[in-house]
Amino acid sequence: MSGLIKGVFVPTVVPYTKDGSIDEAELEHIIHWLIRKGISGLYPNGSMGEFIRLSFEERKKVVEIIARAAGGRVPILAGAAEPNIDMVLDMCRHCADLGCRAVSLTGPYYYKVSQESIEQYFREIAQRSPIDIILYNIPQFANEISLPVLERLALDCPRIVGVKDSSMDMCRMLHTLNAVKGQRPAFSVLVGWEELFVPSLFMGADGGTLSTAGVAPEAIMKMYHAARSGAWAEAKRMQFKLLEVFQAMVSATNFPEGFRAGYEIRGFRVGPARHPLSVDERRCMEEIRGRIACLLAECGFPEAAETCAAVGGGKTSSSKDERDALVRSIVRDVLKNIEPKGQ
Amino acid sequence: MSGLIKGVFVPTVVPYTKDGSIDEAELEHIIHWLIRKGISGLYPNGSMGEFIRLSFEERKKVVEIIARAAGGRVPILAGAAEPNIDMVLDMCRHCADLGCRAVSLTGPYYYKVSQESIEQYFREIAQRSPIDIILYNIPQFANEISLPVLERLALDCPRIVGVKDSSMDMCRMLHTLNAVKGQRPAFSVLVGWEELFVPSLFMGADGGTLSTAGVAPEAIMKMYHAARSGAWAEAKRMQFKLLEVFQAMVSATNFPEGFRAGYEIRGFRVGPARHPLSVDERRCMEEIRGRIACLLAECGFPEAAETCAAVGGGKTSSSKDERDALVRSIVRDVLKNIEPKGQ
Amino acid sequence: MSGLIKGVFVPTVVPYTKDGSIDEAELEHIIHWLIRKGISGLYPNGSMGEFIRLSFEERKKVVEIIARAAGGRVPILAGAAEPNIDMVLDMCRHCADLGCRAVSLTGPYYYKVSQESIEQYFREIAQRSPIDIILYNIPQFANEISLPVLERLALDCPRIVGVKDSSMDMCRMLHTLNAVKGQRPAFSVLVGWEELFVPSLFMGADGGTLSTAGVAPEAIMKMYHAARSGAWAEAKRMQFKLLEVFQAMVSATNFPEGFRAGYEIRGFRVGPARHPLSVDERRCMEEIRGRIACLLAECGFPEAAETCAAVGGGKTSSSKDERDALVRSIVRDVLKNIEPKGQ
Amino acid sequence: MSGLIKGVFVPTVVPYTKDGSIDEAELEHIIHWLIRKGISGLYPNGSMGEFIRLSFEERKKVVEIIARAAGGRVPILAGAAEPNIDMVLDMCRHCADLGCRAVSLTGPYYYKVSQESIEQYFREIAQRSPIDIILYNIPQFANEISLPVLERLALDCPRIVGVKDSSMDMCRMLHTLNAVKGQRPAFSVLVGWEELFVPSLFMGADGGTLSTAGVAPEAIMKMYHAARSGAWAEAKRMQFKLLEVFQAMVSATNFPEGFRAGYEIRGFRVGPARHPLSVDERRCMEEIRGRIACLLAECGFPEAAETCAAVGGGKTSSSKDERDALVRSIVRDVLKNIEPKGQ
Repeated sequence: MSGLIKGVFVPTVVPYTKDGSIDEAELEHIIHWLIRKGISGLYPNGSMGEFIRLSFEERKKVVEIIARAAGGRVPILAGAAEPNIDMVLDMCRHCADLGCRAVSLTGPYYYKVSQESIEQYFREIAQRSPIDIILYNIPQFANEISLPVLERLALDCPRIVGVKDSSMDMCRMLHTLNAVKGQRPAFSVLVGWEELFVPSLFMGADGGTLSTAGVAPEAIMKMYHAARSGAWAEAKRMQFKLLEVFQAMVSATNFPEGFRAGYEIRGFRVGPARHPLSVDERRCMEEIRGRIACLLAECGFPEAAETCAAVGGGKTSSSKDERDALVRSIVRDVLKNIEPKGQ
Repeated sequence: MSGLIKGVFVPTVVPYTKDGSIDEAELEHIIHWLIRKGISGLYPNGSMGEFIRLSFEERKKVVEIIARAAGGRVPILAGAAEPNIDMVLDMCRHCADLGCRAVSLTGPYYYKVSQESIEQYFREIAQRSPIDIILYNIPQFANEISLPVLERLALDCPRIVGVKDSSMDMCRMLHTLNAVKGQRPAFSVLVGWEELFVPSLFMGADGGTLSTAGVAPEAIMKMYHAARSGAWAEAKRMQFKLLEVFQAMVSATNFPEGFRAGYEIRGFRVGPARHPLSVDERRCMEEIRGRIACLLAECGFPEAAETCAAVGGGKTSSSKDERDALVRSIVRDVLKNIEPKGQ
Repeated sequence: MSGLIKGVFVPTVVPYTKDGSIDEAELEHIIHWLIRKGISGLYPNGSMGEFIRLSFEERKKVVEIIARAAGGRVPILAGAAEPNIDMVLDMCRHCADLGCRAVSLTGPYYYKVSQESIEQYFREIAQRSPIDIILYNIPQFANEISLPVLERLALDCPRIVGVKDSSMDMCRMLHTLNAVKGQRPAFSVLVGWEELFVPSLFMGADGGTLSTAGVAPEAIMKMYHAARSGAWAEAKRMQFKLLEVFQAMVSATNFPEGFRAGYEIRGFRVGPARHPLSVDERRCMEEIRGRIACLLAECGFPEAAETCAAVGGGKTSSSKDERDALVRSIVRDVLKNIEPKGQ
Repeated sequence: MSGLIKGVFVPTVVPYTKDGSIDEAELEHIIHWLIRKGISGLYPNGSMGEFIRLSFEERKKVVEIIARAAGGRVPILAGAAEPNIDMVLDMCRHCADLGCRAVSLTGPYYYKVSQESIEQYFREIAQRSPIDIILYNIPQFANEISLPVLERLALDCPRIVGVKDSSMDMCRMLHTLNAVKGQRPAFSVLVGWEELFVPSLFMGADGGTLSTAGVAPEAIMKMYHAARSGAWAEAKRMQFKLLEVFQAMVSATNFPEGFRAGYEIRGFRVGPARHPLSVDERRCMEEIRGRIACLLAECGFPEAAETCAAVGGGKTSSSKDERDALVRSIVRDVLKNIEPKGQ
């Protein structure tokens, strides 16, 4: 496969068995279901897929399971943000061998490093990678890939074929479309934050990688096709509706537990959290699960309706203000880190 | 006047005479010109108008000059972010007496204060103000007005009739439209950041307060009318063009010096900066002036074309990277403060 | 007066009458009491003195009242952070006429401005001021005065005779002592954050401007004299004790309400807050008042002991964790802004 | 071994061979040299040791090499911040088997997680670990371990025997000493930031983990012993001197390249950087190397004197201001992340 990467890629969840290892059967089950629902592609080993909490071997295995289950029906974009260049290239070869469409690379994490060295880092990888590369800008978790660096890399490196931007920054999205896609139209620009999906498509983005698309693929794909066909009134109506479902999931204790709850509501077993929750947080998750279920039920998902009814119609003790506070707290943490590093 | 506040309000510049006092004649001249160009309304004593660098008496005088010059032809939204409630109300009465449509109030600045006390602060003002109020959210400079606080105030206080949002945060814009305007459709939502103008109008905002509209009123009004009439392709094309002009002005040394240079290029005398620039910055301003002129010339403004030609077609020694760095530095400072205060 | 500025300067509170105007009689009363308690100097119109919430005329009046009450018994360092250079110089002349020892100037607030222009701003003021200047670095509320700028100003401008550092940053304190005081030993270095008082004195600072010194002058002066006489074990013991009193006051709803409560516990009438508190915050203040009283009682202040007994020995419903959360929330807001602006 | 962990632990460098693998022989060589110089203990797999850029197997190997080379002569504190609880415990067992004194654990990195879940995470590890644990607070790179969480863990978990604090926050250091060590005197408090070494020892800390101690062990140990014996004037003099050496190394392009240059100046081969530098950065490193050499030469290290002479006495083209800017830029990035997460 080649050509512009576009559409909705699903950042896949990793379900665990009771003993905490990867639940292969359930993961395959989820992949088949997602493909049946019409999603454009799959995206293992992203932030949603908890790549940072897996061992190197587990990350390789996740791509194997998903590539095998997909069987070439949809393209795969696989996270390969490994600890050093040799390991990144090892993972690139692995993904290439499995027939993935491209790998996705965050900026380095943990240390704050200079933009100059980030550029050098991606240049070295791009020169040696056997597979196309999508740069993944997520400044809330990893070093930002600044716009000037992105622009130079996009113009110089044929291997780098797109960007996935999860920075929550619409201004940055516009500058990317203007400065990068304006000069290289075949460069793919994907938005990685649900709240900006329709505005980004409207301004010229090629698609998105949206965790919500794993939980509500029918809704997200309907939104995407509405936007693509110019039915903007419908796309906007759904975008506003999406705000609430997304907030409920993204603000549920630790990311990505809210989305994992969403999968359970849709009938999948995702198993215990890999990063432990406190007793209070586990209790809080039960309430949030009810709320997510009722929101999904409103969107027309029957499994969710049952869970919603079971918890009394979503009337939980967590007041609107408390939820708002939760959401703002997430947003706060996230925005705090959007500053460009280095320069 | 009453009814929904909409359209493009121009945050007015304050021109100074050589001795540093307000240049009344030039300010009147600018107002007449802006109204002839078709702008929707005027907005004195905003961040563009350097309200914080004027004395209380000067701020009163600015509104007087502008109200007299406008003579009722366009509505006026006047900044009234004074140091304490009594002084805010004094300014509210002054603006009401002068026939302004509404006042605009930022959150308190300097101290970080709790959201609870910000809510209380606006409730007290709203109860006693003789004039309608627009809340002005600009977290990069003043305490944020959080979304839950905005929502409660919008639903409880008839005097509070809208919000001007300069937070650069499109997610916040969508939540405002969904949570506040969804419940009170006559509540005015104005965007105060050029880069988000067309996306905000597309998603449902009522207009904007854009400093660029003072320098290039023809372009901004054309964009606004394109959007209003559904000519989105044209609106988007101009939005991308606007990114560059806006960046050149917003990144030119200290805000609002780049915009003041823009006014000079359009033929006005704005006088010396009230906050001093260093020698290097003054030199840098000359280069930037040429660049702004050439961008304005591309947009079809003849006065700008002359200035552009005079500087050799905008070929300046400041490289693209340096400009990018400047822009990112502004954005960095701005984003750093978007976190909600208090809670 | 001239010579090195040293010792403990008290950032003075502004008491208000019931109608919200400055309570002159009570302010005089406080000044006489503080001088009797042995404080080294007075510091009107600082952050503690809510200068930003007063009118220009009120700020002038505050210095008049205090200068008259002090009657030359202790030196006065007066805040003069006015909106523009002309107004700063007007206030400088006013303070000089009243016999103040020096004025104190924060970096510009509201806008983020470049370090270059901040340097230029202070150079212009220093050239024209009739009175000595202390630079006041408080990056949580105003633009930082970066260390390189401070160093150049200290070496070039005789009028600039010291720095008051409220940045909460001990590393910055050490660099200031090393780079600035190392080259100009008569340059005064004062710490403006209680938690770093003894460590700063130990490393070479000349004194402090501490809001707690207005509430517990006996304790702070004892600490100061212990440090000065080399009784470090005693100074350290008191520093750890101070942590708790300070935290209780600095974390009590909005700054400086906790300190205002402290004055009330010591027997003064400070009147209503100028920035309103919510109903919940007013209730919270009552609990905190009891807690502060009991801490002051432990430190040996009889008026506080009565208030402490009246509230049941300080056993309040606010748990330790809630208090911790409050404190961390203050610290969070404060730290968020420590980044150097401009450059 | 048991008892209070104290003294100076050296966060060890990882030298690489030309092909990028760990240079075992050189690492052993460094360990023997450090122990001969009198350092108190060794600290592999910290931030200095680039643990995040090694594979899991490499991290295990580093501890093996160091434990074997040390041969029980000094205690070892080994980083064990692995991706999930099972892998942390695997590393704990490995370190216990090798006879390490304790492991050191950062908060989780990459995701922002709640303080509640961080507490739960450490409780689960502490219950199951076969070896003592030091918590490692480094909010600039990983989630903060908030003070209330630290306090509860210290009081509840016997396995958690100390904290290493690299937050650059002296206020936090004082609160830790007051709140935690005040209640559990055998709890070890180590400072992990050079600029705060002497102030922390003075206020009651038990020692430090200082990267500079690997490059200049003689100087750091002399400082430490001066402080321990009450020779504070000497300790303070050296602290101020240390500021400059430390700044030169910490501000040299990407951490920990400046320290790696320091090792080279002392005569070791550290090999190529694992995270690539740009061409400009490599050139810049050469200049910085000269500067570090001259500073070390001033401190009396003969190998450094030769390198200093070779580069012309440290006169580099990088001006003081540029260096200051570099330093501030590092500090800025670091401070930006000090905010407590979660709560």
